[in-house]
Amino acid sequence: MNRIITLTTDFGLSDGFVGVMKGVILSIAPEAIIVDITHDIAPQDIRQGAFLFAASARYFPANAIHVVVVDPGVGSARRPIAIQVGENFFVAPDNGVLSLALGDAKIRAVHLNRPEFWLPRVSRTFHGRDIFAPIAAHLARGVPLESLGDAIDDYVRLDLPRATRDANGAITGTIIHIDRFGNLITNIGEELFEGLDRAPLRVCIGEKMIQGIRQTYADGAKGEAIALISSSWQLEIAVREGNAAAMLGVQIGERVVVR
Amino acid sequence: MNRIITLTTDFGLSDGFVGVMKGVILSIAPEAIIVDITHDIAPQDIRQGAFLFAASARYFPANAIHVVVVDPGVGSARRPIAIQVGENFFVAPDNGVLSLALGDAKIRAVHLNRPEFWLPRVSRTFHGRDIFAPIAAHLARGVPLESLGDAIDDYVRLDLPRATRDANGAITGTIIHIDRFGNLITNIGEELFEGLDRAPLRVCIGEKMIQGIRQTYADGAKGEAIALISSSWQLEIAVREGNAAAMLGVQIGERVVVR
Amino acid sequence: MNRIITLTTDFGLSDGFVGVMKGVILSIAPEAIIVDITHDIAPQDIRQGAFLFAASARYFPANAIHVVVVDPGVGSARRPIAIQVGENFFVAPDNGVLSLALGDAKIRAVHLNRPEFWLPRVSRTFHGRDIFAPIAAHLARGVPLESLGDAIDDYVRLDLPRATRDANGAITGTIIHIDRFGNLITNIGEELFEGLDRAPLRVCIGEKMIQGIRQTYADGAKGEAIALISSSWQLEIAVREGNAAAMLGVQIGERVVVR
Repeated sequence: MNRIITLTTDFGLSDGFVGVMKGVILSIAPEAIIVDITHDIAPQDIRQGAFLFAASARYFPANAIHVVVVDPGVGSARRPIAIQVGENFFVAPDNGVLSLALGDAKIRAVHLNRPEFWLPRVSRTFHGRDIFAPIAAHLARGVPLESLGDAIDDYVRLDLPRATRDANGAITGTIIHIDRFGNLITNIGEELFEGLDRAPLRVCIGEKMIQGIRQTYADGAKGEAIALISSSWQLEIAVREGNAAAMLGVQIGERVVVR
Repeated sequence: MNRIITLTTDFGLSDGFVGVMKGVILSIAPEAIIVDITHDIAPQDIRQGAFLFAASARYFPANAIHVVVVDPGVGSARRPIAIQVGENFFVAPDNGVLSLALGDAKIRAVHLNRPEFWLPRVSRTFHGRDIFAPIAAHLARGVPLESLGDAIDDYVRLDLPRATRDANGAITGTIIHIDRFGNLITNIGEELFEGLDRAPLRVCIGEKMIQGIRQTYADGAKGEAIALISSSWQLEIAVREGNAAAMLGVQIGERVVVR
Repeated sequence: MNRIITLTTDFGLSDGFVGVMKGVILSIAPEAIIVDITHDIAPQDIRQGAFLFAASARYFPANAIHVVVVDPGVGSARRPIAIQVGENFFVAPDNGVLSLALGDAKIRAVHLNRPEFWLPRVSRTFHGRDIFAPIAAHLARGVPLESLGDAIDDYVRLDLPRATRDANGAITGTIIHIDRFGNLITNIGEELFEGLDRAPLRVCIGEKMIQGIRQTYADGAKGEAIALISSSWQLEIAVREGNAAAMLGVQIGERVVVR
């Protein structure tokens, strides 16, 4: 069966970097089906990469090969790694960008240190092309993980802010992503609301207080800020047919409190 | 035969939304060939989506499955629908975004109201992922339209401005799209010029008067505004090696008169 | 075997132009594997197109079909051409956009002048859709080059600035590309440094003097401008975790001198 290879990077689409990775993959694994998750991670923003990749990867088939390249340390001592979870493979620099997606899954991991599976000439600045793309292609062809490098049992995990709920039921979290529509996505997972009546809750962000948690964008009046559960099942603040980030002047990292 | 599924949305490419739709499709229909038409429809701009989709869809094979998601009413009472015209399928929210492409074609339509063909868990904010993508994938696998929901015989049609030609041969229309190059596309179809001598015509937009209708961009001097027939066979105003929208200060909706 | 068709254009991704080209290709050659190199060439910038395409094309399999459409002269007398080098095909307007990729390779070339291999109706403004896409699709199906038009033995070559090294070992070149990260790519190929000790070299750009040529981004301090060899094996100026173009106020065409 043809294997899916997904790509998540901060390379943008302007410079041909992504096209080149696809050329390398298809040179080795002509039958691979390549799918872009996003290439617009903010340059070198490992946290944003980790969040968007984790929110997306779960919707792919169980035997996909995921390549994630947000790599400020390219060419330095940071290790290139590959990780297997069940039938799924993950290929990335060892800088934490996979850690949200992997969570506490039982993994097998290798340090990619066998150059015979890379391009013959490796640059110091574009391992997406020279190491990660060929590794993904070899995995797609059925090369076993263990052939690609020495086994390791640790890998870098991001220390990300976690949302908390105190004894009085007050929930504190932060904005971790702002999407194209200006919607503000928090790290407050839906499960934190368990047992709470949602209608009387107040969501506070900066000077703004929003009453209740709605079902959908259409529950707001045009231009009204509302809180709801996002498609990634986290608390989201949105403005119907408007841009919440612009209207509220909010940036990533802003604190959100729900009482 | 592998079916083509096209995607037209206002989701942008930054947030992984489109990648996720592809993951859902390929999980259900691994052989589908997915083609992006555009994901840069202005957020929630149903008219622009309807125009760009109609101009593009006709160039795809006759048995393609087209998914169009510009969906300001997601999660509200607006219906998700699927429509069959010949061997072609169209999947979209019922808000008029398909109406330009469908025109007066003879259609069969269903209200997508059978959750067994959706993702198991449906969000209130991302039906592209939870309803439209799986429906397209099931169609690609050969599930008949009628299985996906109850038959309907009406669907929402946009009330779009139409260009007119009066008894004296004067044609009045509006700018309906501005492309990446700043070219101004009108709703004045080429057929409205039938029987008119094009050289003496004057195209008036705002304060600007353009003489004659040319054949191609190269017929203008550098920096000169010219009128010509666009690749979608409508009157277009362009500036050779320049940006007509910026130079003329024109926006979508501006009136154009040809005498 | 399924043929790869690559696309490099200045069409952007917003207007559906690229999706339409794919629809045309798949209508003729349903088994083609289409890969985007980039569609963000600056509008009508033949030099940038030539550079990015040449840097990317070499990473694709030897039997790919490359379509490059940066075409300010569309609809004028400039010829559409197709070129074969070994098993590789190149399809483009004859304006020099292929010349960097082709270099001094031994070529066979034709003037695309047989409309039976185009779309039935050809616009004057979108030959990417009407001529180049169908030609690529026919090549993918195995139509021989010679069938597509009359043989020609000349084609337009760009007159690009070349980097030089004088008798004292001083190297002079120019900035030819600025990538998404703000890295400045010069036309100074790595081979010009042959026999020189790299550590004592000084790289001068505008008022700025950079000492030595490093190995990788991580060799710089945060915010420091450094020189290194790019992934396209040319001299590059970068700022670690920063934007060199913005920091140094440099644009394409700026002179770089290495002593």
